[in-house]
Amino acid sequence: MLVVMQHGASADEVQRVVDTIEELGYEARPMPGKQRTAVGLVGNDGRVDASRLAALPGVKEIIHVTQPYKQVSREWKEEPTVVELPGGLRIGGDDVVVMAGPCSVESEEQILEAARAVRASGAAMLRGGAFKPEETGLLVVTEAIDPEGVDLVAQYADVIQIGARNMQNFSLLKRAGRAGKPVLLKRGIAATINELLLSAEYLLAEGNHDVILCERGIRGFDNSTRNVFDLAAIPVVHGLSHLPIIADPSHATGRRDKVIPMARAAVAAGADGVIVEVHPQPDRALSDGAQSLYPEQFAELMREIRVITDAIGRSVAEPLPAVSA
Amino acid sequence: MLVVMQHGASADEVQRVVDTIEELGYEARPMPGKQRTAVGLVGNDGRVDASRLAALPGVKEIIHVTQPYKQVSREWKEEPTVVELPGGLRIGGDDVVVMAGPCSVESEEQILEAARAVRASGAAMLRGGAFKPEETGLLVVTEAIDPEGVDLVAQYADVIQIGARNMQNFSLLKRAGRAGKPVLLKRGIAATINELLLSAEYLLAEGNHDVILCERGIRGFDNSTRNVFDLAAIPVVHGLSHLPIIADPSHATGRRDKVIPMARAAVAAGADGVIVEVHPQPDRALSDGAQSLYPEQFAELMREIRVITDAIGRSVAEPLPAVSA
Amino acid sequence: MLVVMQHGASADEVQRVVDTIEELGYEARPMPGKQRTAVGLVGNDGRVDASRLAALPGVKEIIHVTQPYKQVSREWKEEPTVVELPGGLRIGGDDVVVMAGPCSVESEEQILEAARAVRASGAAMLRGGAFKPEETGLLVVTEAIDPEGVDLVAQYADVIQIGARNMQNFSLLKRAGRAGKPVLLKRGIAATINELLLSAEYLLAEGNHDVILCERGIRGFDNSTRNVFDLAAIPVVHGLSHLPIIADPSHATGRRDKVIPMARAAVAAGADGVIVEVHPQPDRALSDGAQSLYPEQFAELMREIRVITDAIGRSVAEPLPAVSA
Amino acid sequence: MLVVMQHGASADEVQRVVDTIEELGYEARPMPGKQRTAVGLVGNDGRVDASRLAALPGVKEIIHVTQPYKQVSREWKEEPTVVELPGGLRIGGDDVVVMAGPCSVESEEQILEAARAVRASGAAMLRGGAFKPEETGLLVVTEAIDPEGVDLVAQYADVIQIGARNMQNFSLLKRAGRAGKPVLLKRGIAATINELLLSAEYLLAEGNHDVILCERGIRGFDNSTRNVFDLAAIPVVHGLSHLPIIADPSHATGRRDKVIPMARAAVAAGADGVIVEVHPQPDRALSDGAQSLYPEQFAELMREIRVITDAIGRSVAEPLPAVSA
Repeated sequence: MLVVMQHGASADEVQRVVDTIEELGYEARPMPGKQRTAVGLVGNDGRVDASRLAALPGVKEIIHVTQPYKQVSREWKEEPTVVELPGGLRIGGDDVVVMAGPCSVESEEQILEAARAVRASGAAMLRGGAFKPEETGLLVVTEAIDPEGVDLVAQYADVIQIGARNMQNFSLLKRAGRAGKPVLLKRGIAATINELLLSAEYLLAEGNHDVILCERGIRGFDNSTRNVFDLAAIPVVHGLSHLPIIADPSHATGRRDKVIPMARAAVAAGADGVIVEVHPQPDRALSDGAQSLYPEQFAELMREIRVITDAIGRSVAEPLPAVSA
Repeated sequence: MLVVMQHGASADEVQRVVDTIEELGYEARPMPGKQRTAVGLVGNDGRVDASRLAALPGVKEIIHVTQPYKQVSREWKEEPTVVELPGGLRIGGDDVVVMAGPCSVESEEQILEAARAVRASGAAMLRGGAFKPEETGLLVVTEAIDPEGVDLVAQYADVIQIGARNMQNFSLLKRAGRAGKPVLLKRGIAATINELLLSAEYLLAEGNHDVILCERGIRGFDNSTRNVFDLAAIPVVHGLSHLPIIADPSHATGRRDKVIPMARAAVAAGADGVIVEVHPQPDRALSDGAQSLYPEQFAELMREIRVITDAIGRSVAEPLPAVSA
Repeated sequence: MLVVMQHGASADEVQRVVDTIEELGYEARPMPGKQRTAVGLVGNDGRVDASRLAALPGVKEIIHVTQPYKQVSREWKEEPTVVELPGGLRIGGDDVVVMAGPCSVESEEQILEAARAVRASGAAMLRGGAFKPEETGLLVVTEAIDPEGVDLVAQYADVIQIGARNMQNFSLLKRAGRAGKPVLLKRGIAATINELLLSAEYLLAEGNHDVILCERGIRGFDNSTRNVFDLAAIPVVHGLSHLPIIADPSHATGRRDKVIPMARAAVAAGADGVIVEVHPQPDRALSDGAQSLYPEQFAELMREIRVITDAIGRSVAEPLPAVSA
Repeated sequence: MLVVMQHGASADEVQRVVDTIEELGYEARPMPGKQRTAVGLVGNDGRVDASRLAALPGVKEIIHVTQPYKQVSREWKEEPTVVELPGGLRIGGDDVVVMAGPCSVESEEQILEAARAVRASGAAMLRGGAFKPEETGLLVVTEAIDPEGVDLVAQYADVIQIGARNMQNFSLLKRAGRAGKPVLLKRGIAATINELLLSAEYLLAEGNHDVILCERGIRGFDNSTRNVFDLAAIPVVHGLSHLPIIADPSHATGRRDKVIPMARAAVAAGADGVIVEVHPQPDRALSDGAQSLYPEQFAELMREIRVITDAIGRSVAEPLPAVSA
């Protein structure tokens, strides 16, 4: 942490900063400069009360050198986290995991039809499923929207999803962190990557290390697409953290004809998976129909993803075998 | 609602849009243009399933003419809503209401000291109070952060605050809408004004018409201030809605020396109130100390706000009389 | 064009809009709705003075159905534009063109060393070159920063680059539109895709149809990367326009270790080319050293791009043969 | 300047940073921390080549402590700059200067009519004037859009305006810096305040110290208003720089009914002036009619601004006396 003094700060003001740092139990290292003095705080253990320093007279600003998160960082754990799911499916390893399905559950029939279609094309997981379609062999990721819902979701789904609007819903995060199931944490629409990692830290702090991040578009000034698909978040997260990160081109773009190229791009950028909306009959969908792929478009997308994964030395995770009745 | 066809859309495709609109129970009005045809949907009652139309072949986009909210709009209710609080305090009328206090409660002593200080300068409401300082005559606004907390807050506070992070926490909104107390709804950091009004609609839909909106800064690309204080939201909301709107310069700017000019600017822009952080000893504050005013700065701010309200034909709401023990 | 009336607009006010539309020489088509009336303007030839209508009493807003650009649109020209460069190099066809080189020219020696290195790995064009390294067979793209510079650049370079800061420098655009050389137009840091296309329209309007667009990152709220690399712009532009579009991962991310994955992603998203910074000795570069690739990193990137292009049925444009002295 | 090392940086890597700093002629001060080491560079005179350090192995990032601008900063010159205009009009002192007029010149008659109307209400300067209406006593601010135009504008206008699109057109800035007339520099639509100040530095570096800054709205994600009017820029600029700053509510909001409250807010926030569009017949305006005030609205605005300036201890600059023929 660096305490930057104002240009005209007096020697007394600098001294008071030094004294306060030492009072707080750290070492102070003044650095006089041509334009102003800065005072380094040495030994920051992440618990320094910066606002006490910021409020001292003559202080211009506080610069943080250390990230505010810990367990999610690469510096805490060098090797990538691989989330192990039932049946041996793994997220964060060499395989790219494809999750697909309708945006919302309309009927058991609709879900089963969608599940069979995406399974046939090679998806390994079903999104949006409230019913567990055992017969298909698909694992299920389901969103929990409030703390009470977490346990129910944990009971039936293989992965608990925390949606973008709830990325900073800390009571929900805490509950999910204790639910004993992997968590898929989506980036908030206006969240920085640092904030995404801080939210993930809440999950790890509760003892849940099976966390998968998800880039799903951020708010921008251009409405050509629904959101701005910030694909650079993928290598950035991989640099800062050991957690896997997947991408959601359906919500990011909001338009069916942009989903296929952007899913390809996500895989090429190094995503550990993609999650896409597929609906048996998009033009009859109750919600977000315009961004859902037709089953045959999804089949084409799977073919293209396979070639891209080959190109970058990865492969597509195979779905688990279907269960015969 | 306007269904815009692609340039090369065929007559059959246009006809299918017309048929679908009629099938949905509305009237279709085709408008052939030089570059493309558009089909007007007449009689939209707000329940048209746009995605069914968007997904039809040859459709380029859907343009919404009608706002997606209802009861919060000026068109639904022409005269401004005045929220009546105990003791006759009113928000949304001629008076500008000032709410002040510390960011977080550190001790009963700290809160009482803050309450006495802001009351002495003329604030009518205390922010951040968990204890109700009856003696001071200040009304209290307290944040509820999850659905379970709403009832407790409703029991002790005069106004329930929904924070920016929870603006789209719909289970929280629903609970607050049924709690029988006025609600202060803060704009999310990346929320459009339309989205703010839609969230308010949730409260009104539950039967709670005593809703106060709050502009508190939106996310931008420049970190000179913590957020971008979007003061134009005040006249924009006043144009679109009958609900009162206040402004929070402390969270918007994050810096003490910017709070005073921006509070003045908010009042000049027509805000129905301001909410500011004041701490008896900002350099000892546990959180957000750097944005809290010193009591004497708050006194000066109150003097300036009084002159501005005079200038625009309004006045500052007086605090209720203190209760003698 | 749709003129949306206010909720309480009178019949007279609607009539005045109808009369004004007819006075302007177009046909008016009123559409009464549940909440408000809208009046369609039929026959818009792109020259309607919308502000005359917007200023009429009772008018709420004007909604534009037609894009404000013409010759750059897919509706004007269905088949993709292929820009033909000397020696048969083509941008916008099946081949993906790679442009590489240093950010700024430091010496003839540095440029030649860079040119030889990127040529050896398979780049077809040199960026940032003021000297034309004839011997290498590389074509050259050079930026013009003011109207006077255009002719000089046109004389020595094969493609004239208009930088992001100058995307709306209309006197520069006009001059470049008349210079008789293909133009590479970079998207401004805060430009919508519509604005990018409108700037391209200026070039086409001057008679220059050889225009290549370039996505190079837009301003966002997160400084994890220098800009937000808006790769969805690639399929969006391909949908709206017949012009080719390339991508610049170096300026978009500003960080060397993000350039390779994002260049791959750009190609997977359908970019017609990429432009990357390569420097013989990045740690000695006078500018932007931190985002320049080492020659051996560039060689690796070329290998990866080749595999991705294969995967999506394209190929990498081969450089022209070197000229023997 | 602070060179932050990666967590696992070796002692050799730290030493190489120290050596490079010393090689560059500065003093290095290593600060070992719990998570990582940082190396302070002492004596930064603003000419350190940061990219050389950023590119060294083991370096995570470079943190700049010193602003990149000099002469425009408060630290360079403590007392506020007051720009002196002909006839004794001053910008940056106690008086708030109001500039008004049409967006574009349509005819000499229109300009004269506008000039007389805004002069009658008390404006001191005319915006958008190509003709100098000597008779009215108004000073004139006119935009120069390319380097060649600067001299012509300097010959006829009292203040040369650099528009938002040209804020980083450095050849234009250099020419304007040598033109011998005060310059009004508008903030670019996506420019940070730091970038605005850097552009102003170009003008001062050419010897022109009579620079007036202007906040006119920045790009945001909500299209309720054309831009986001970032009024906090006013106290921020006043904190960082000695230069005066005015505000343009017409371009910022783009809507007539928002101009009056936001002009009031700008003055309350401490702006040294406002610039507003006024047109004799807004519904006949050739451009931007929807944001131009009617003359009687402008008269009302002037009354309100006078009361606000009184409230904050300032006054409105009186126009110079009209010249009798």
